Amino acid sequence: MEGKEEDVRLGANKFTERQPLGTAAQVPDSKDYTEPPPAPLFEPGELTSWSFYRAGIAEFVATFLFLYITVLTVMGVVQPETKCKTVGIQGIAWAFGGMIFALVYCTAGISGGHINPAVTFGLFLARKLSLTRAVFYMVMQCLGAICGAGVVKGFEGATRYQLLGGGANSVAHGYTKGDGLGAEIIGTFVLVYTVFSATDAKRSARDSHVPILAPLPIGFAVFLVHLATIPITGTGINPARSLGAAIIFNREHAWDDHWIFWVGPFIGAALAALYHVVVIRAIPFKSK
Amino acid sequence: MEGKEEDVRLGANKFTERQPLGTAAQVPDSKDYTEPPPAPLFEPGELTSWSFYRAGIAEFVATFLFLYITVLTVMGVVQPETKCKTVGIQGIAWAFGGMIFALVYCTAGISGGHINPAVTFGLFLARKLSLTRAVFYMVMQCLGAICGAGVVKGFEGATRYQLLGGGANSVAHGYTKGDGLGAEIIGTFVLVYTVFSATDAKRSARDSHVPILAPLPIGFAVFLVHLATIPITGTGINPARSLGAAIIFNREHAWDDHWIFWVGPFIGAALAALYHVVVIRAIPFKSK
Amino acid sequence: MEGKEEDVRLGANKFTERQPLGTAAQVPDSKDYTEPPPAPLFEPGELTSWSFYRAGIAEFVATFLFLYITVLTVMGVVQPETKCKTVGIQGIAWAFGGMIFALVYCTAGISGGHINPAVTFGLFLARKLSLTRAVFYMVMQCLGAICGAGVVKGFEGATRYQLLGGGANSVAHGYTKGDGLGAEIIGTFVLVYTVFSATDAKRSARDSHVPILAPLPIGFAVFLVHLATIPITGTGINPARSLGAAIIFNREHAWDDHWIFWVGPFIGAALAALYHVVVIRAIPFKSK
Amino acid sequence: MEGKEEDVRLGANKFTERQPLGTAAQVPDSKDYTEPPPAPLFEPGELTSWSFYRAGIAEFVATFLFLYITVLTVMGVVQPETKCKTVGIQGIAWAFGGMIFALVYCTAGISGGHINPAVTFGLFLARKLSLTRAVFYMVMQCLGAICGAGVVKGFEGATRYQLLGGGANSVAHGYTKGDGLGAEIIGTFVLVYTVFSATDAKRSARDSHVPILAPLPIGFAVFLVHLATIPITGTGINPARSLGAAIIFNREHAWDDHWIFWVGPFIGAALAALYHVVVIRAIPFKSK
Repeated sequence: MEGKEEDVRLGANKFTERQPLGTAAQVPDSKDYTEPPPAPLFEPGELTSWSFYRAGIAEFVATFLFLYITVLTVMGVVQPETKCKTVGIQGIAWAFGGMIFALVYCTAGISGGHINPAVTFGLFLARKLSLTRAVFYMVMQCLGAICGAGVVKGFEGATRYQLLGGGANSVAHGYTKGDGLGAEIIGTFVLVYTVFSATDAKRSARDSHVPILAPLPIGFAVFLVHLATIPITGTGINPARSLGAAIIFNREHAWDDHWIFWVGPFIGAALAALYHVVVIRAIPFKSK
Repeated sequence: MEGKEEDVRLGANKFTERQPLGTAAQVPDSKDYTEPPPAPLFEPGELTSWSFYRAGIAEFVATFLFLYITVLTVMGVVQPETKCKTVGIQGIAWAFGGMIFALVYCTAGISGGHINPAVTFGLFLARKLSLTRAVFYMVMQCLGAICGAGVVKGFEGATRYQLLGGGANSVAHGYTKGDGLGAEIIGTFVLVYTVFSATDAKRSARDSHVPILAPLPIGFAVFLVHLATIPITGTGINPARSLGAAIIFNREHAWDDHWIFWVGPFIGAALAALYHVVVIRAIPFKSK
Repeated sequence: MEGKEEDVRLGANKFTERQPLGTAAQVPDSKDYTEPPPAPLFEPGELTSWSFYRAGIAEFVATFLFLYITVLTVMGVVQPETKCKTVGIQGIAWAFGGMIFALVYCTAGISGGHINPAVTFGLFLARKLSLTRAVFYMVMQCLGAICGAGVVKGFEGATRYQLLGGGANSVAHGYTKGDGLGAEIIGTFVLVYTVFSATDAKRSARDSHVPILAPLPIGFAVFLVHLATIPITGTGINPARSLGAAIIFNREHAWDDHWIFWVGPFIGAALAALYHVVVIRAIPFKSK
Repeated sequence: MEGKEEDVRLGANKFTERQPLGTAAQVPDSKDYTEPPPAPLFEPGELTSWSFYRAGIAEFVATFLFLYITVLTVMGVVQPETKCKTVGIQGIAWAFGGMIFALVYCTAGISGGHINPAVTFGLFLARKLSLTRAVFYMVMQCLGAICGAGVVKGFEGATRYQLLGGGANSVAHGYTKGDGLGAEIIGTFVLVYTVFSATDAKRSARDSHVPILAPLPIGFAVFLVHLATIPITGTGINPARSLGAAIIFNREHAWDDHWIFWVGPFIGAALAALYHVVVIRAIPFKSK
C-alpha cells in the first residue's frame, strides 16, 4: 500500500515539474524523479529468467520481420525501370521507418524494442542494460536480419536477388568513404538521440504515456534519415540490417564498405549517449 | 463500489509494473493484471443481445467502406498509362493501411474492429471471442466486401472495371504460388502480431490509453505489408478483401490463386496467435 | 465540490465499461455515462456570448487557411506537365487530409472544429448544436473558403488560375453525374461517420483523451476519400470548399455540377448521423 | 502537500470545463486554470542557470540536425534529372515537417522546442519567454543552421552543392516578391497558430497529454505549408533555415530575396500571436 501511495503522489507532483512546450524552464529543476541506477555489467540472475530469453526471441523475430519487409520493398522498387510504377524511393523510406514504429510498439514491453545493435550499444553505454544482455541482443538481431534477408532471396530467386543488389549498403558513386561514414554517424545520432529523448527517466516520471507514444518519433527518425541519406549510402544506421543484407548478397562491393556500417552507427550512438547523459541530463555533475 | 476501488488500485499499481521502453525487464513479472478467461465456444446469451447484431452490422459497414475506398483507389491508379498522374502504388498502400487505421478507430468500441476474417480467426484461436461470434463476423465481413467492390464496379462501369483488373489478388508473373503463399503468411503474421501486441491484456492493465492508440500501429502494419508485397500478390492478408474483389471481378485467373488468400492469411494468423500466446505470454506454462 | 467528486467516480468507473479492442462486448452495456441532452433549436443566450462569435471567427479563419493551403497545392501540381516534379496527386490528398487534422486540432476547443458545412449539418441533425449556431457556422465557413481561394488567385494571377482550373470540383469525363453524386455521398459518410465515432459521448466518458486524439483519424478520413475519388470528382465532401473554389473560378462547367457538391455531402452526413444515432447508439430505442 | 492536493483538484475539475470536439461551448467559460504571468523582459537569474545554456545548446543541435537532414534531402531530389528516382518533392516536404515533429518531441522538455526564430519571436510577443532568452535562442538557431548546411556542403562537395542550389530560398519565376512575401506570412501564420493552439495554457490545464501530443500537429503544419509553397519560394517560414542555406550557398540571387524570409515569417508570427492572444484568448479584455 505504501508504494502505491508513493505512485499517486508522483502523479500529482508531475504537474509542478512539467516543462510546457514552447516556453522555457525558468525555475530550477525540482528533482521529483529517481534516476534508475546503472545496470550492472553482468547480472547473473538474468541468465536463469525466462524473460531474458523471451526478450532475445522477440528481438530475433522483430529484426527478421524488419529485414523481410524492408528488403522486399527495396526489391520491388529497384526492379522496374521506371520508379513511377513502384512505391518509389520514398516508399522505401516509409518501409524502414514504419517498420521501426510498428515493431518498437510491439516489442517495447518485451525486450525494450531495440531491433538495432547501435541502439543496444547506445543504451548499454548509458548503462540501461547489462553487457550480457547487450551482447545477447546483438547476436539475436544479426541472426534475425540474416534470416529476414534470406527469405527475401528465397522469394525473389537468387538470380534476380543478385541482379537487384539485395538491398545491401555501400557508398554511392560521387561520395567518398568519409562522406558515407559521416552520414552514418549523424544519421545514427538522430535515431539514438530520439530514443534517449523518448525513454528519458525524467520524462517518464512526468508523463506516463511516453512509453506508448515514443515509437512514433523513433520510427519517424528512421524515416527521415532514409529520406536524406539513401542517395549516399542507401542508409544503414543499423549494423544488423547492413550485415544481414551483406551476408545474403555476399558480393565483394558489399563487403568493401561494410566496416562503415558498424563503425559509423556505433560512433553515432556513442555521441548521442554522450550528448544525452552529459549535456541534457548532466548526470556526471550531479551530486548523488 | 467495491469494483471501482479495485480499479483505482490497479491504476496506481501500474507504475510498478511498467516496462520502460529501451530497457529490459530485469525484475520478474509481478502479475498485477488478470488474464481474461477464454471466451466460451458458444455463448447462448449473445444471440439475444442487440450488441451482438450491432457488432455484425458494424463489421459489415466497415468492410464495405474498406473495399469501396481501396478498390476505387486501385482503379484510379491502374487506369492512366503513367502512374505519375495518380496517387501511385504508394497511394494504394496508404489507402489500405489508412482505412484500417480509421475503421479500427471507429469500430473498436462496437465490434472490436476486426474488418478481416484472418484477424477474427487469430483472436478466436486465442479464445478472445466465441465461435458463434467469429463465424457471424466472417460472414458479415465477406458480405460487406462483396457490396463494397460491387459499388466500385457500378461507378466504373463493367467494361472498365474488368479491363482494370477489379483490384483482384493473384500471384504476379515471375513468382511461384509458393512465394505468394509465403508472402501472405508472413504479411498476415505482421498484421495479427501487431493486433495481439496492441490488445494484450497485460498491456491494457498497465496503460489505459492502449485501446485508443492501438489503431495507428495496426493501420501501419497493413500499410507496410502492402509496400512490400504489392509486386508479388497485390497483397491480400484479408480473405474478405480478396473474396469481395474476386466475386465482383469473377474472371478465371482471379479464382485460380484464390485459395492462397484464405490459406495464407489463416496460417499467418495462427502463427501470430501461437507466438503471442506461447512465447510472449507463455500462458500454457503458467499456473492458474 | 460535489460535481468534482462525481467526475472522479466517473473516471474510476470507466475501466469497468471499457470495450477492449479486438474483443467484443459480451456483457450488456452498463450505462455509466450521460447522453448530453439535445441542443435546443434556438438558444437565445448564445447570441449575446463572446464565445459564439469567437467560434464563428475561428471557423472563418480555419476554412480560409484550409482553402488557401489546399488550392495552392493543387495549383502547384497541375501546373507542370510532368507530375513527377511536384508533390503529386498524393500530395494533394495529404494537403486536404493534413489540413483537416491540424485545423481540427487547433479549433476543436474553440468552435468544435467543423470547417465543413456537411459536418455541421450532420452534428445539427444529431442535435449537437443549435440551428442558429449551425447556420452561423456554415455562413462563416463559406466566407472563409471564398477568401482562401481568392488569395490563391491573387498569388497565381487570374490568367494562370483560370488556366489551371482553380481547384474547382466537377465530375470527370467517363463518369456520370450519378457516379459523382454517389462518390460524394459515400465519401462524406466516411468522414462524418469518423467524426461521430470520435466525438461519441459514451466514448468520451470512457476515455478522456479522445478529444485530443480524435483529429488524427478525422484528418485521415479526408485523406483517404481524396485518394479514392480525386479521379471522379476531384473530391468535394465539403460544400464550403466546393463553393469557395467555384465562386473564385466562376466558369460555367464549375457551376453545372455544383449542386452535386451540396446535395451529396448533405445526404452522406445525414446517413452517417442516422447510422450513428439509430444503429450504433440506438438512442431512439432507449428508455429515458 | 497543499500544492499537490491543488493539482489533484485541478485534474478533477478539467472534465467540467472540457469542450467536446464537434460541439460548441454553450456554457460561459468557467475559469479553472491560471494564465501564467507574462515572462519578464530581462530575467537576471536565467544567465547564471545551467538550464539556460543547456536550452541554447539544445536549440543549436536541433537546428543543426534540421538543416542537415532537410538540405541533404533537397540535394538528393534536385540532383537526378527525373524526380521519379528520388523521394520527390513530397519527400522534401516530409523531411521538413517530419524533422520538426521529431525535434520538437525531443527538445520540448529542454528548451521548449522552437528550432525557428519566427516561433521564438511569436512566443516572445506573447510574453512566454524573456527577451534575453529569445535573442540567445535566435543566435543559437542561426549558428546551428549554418553548421548544418555547411556539413551538407562538405558531403556533397562545393561544385555539386553550388550547382544544385544549396537548398537556398528565393522567389520562383512567375511570382512577384509580393507573392513570396504573402506566402511566407500566411505559411508562418499556419505554423505559429498551431504552436499557440498546442501550447495554450487553458488547454494544458484541461488535458495533461497536450505537451506530449503537440509535436505531431506542429510537424504536420510545417509539412503542409511546404506542400503548398515549395513552388513559390521553396518555403522558408523559418529565418534560421533560410539564413543557414543562404550563407553556405552565398550566391547573389539567394541574397536578393533574403529579406522576405525574415520579414515574412516575423509578420506571420506576430499575426498568429495577435490572433491567439486577442481573438481566441481575449486576454486584453479580461479583468485580472
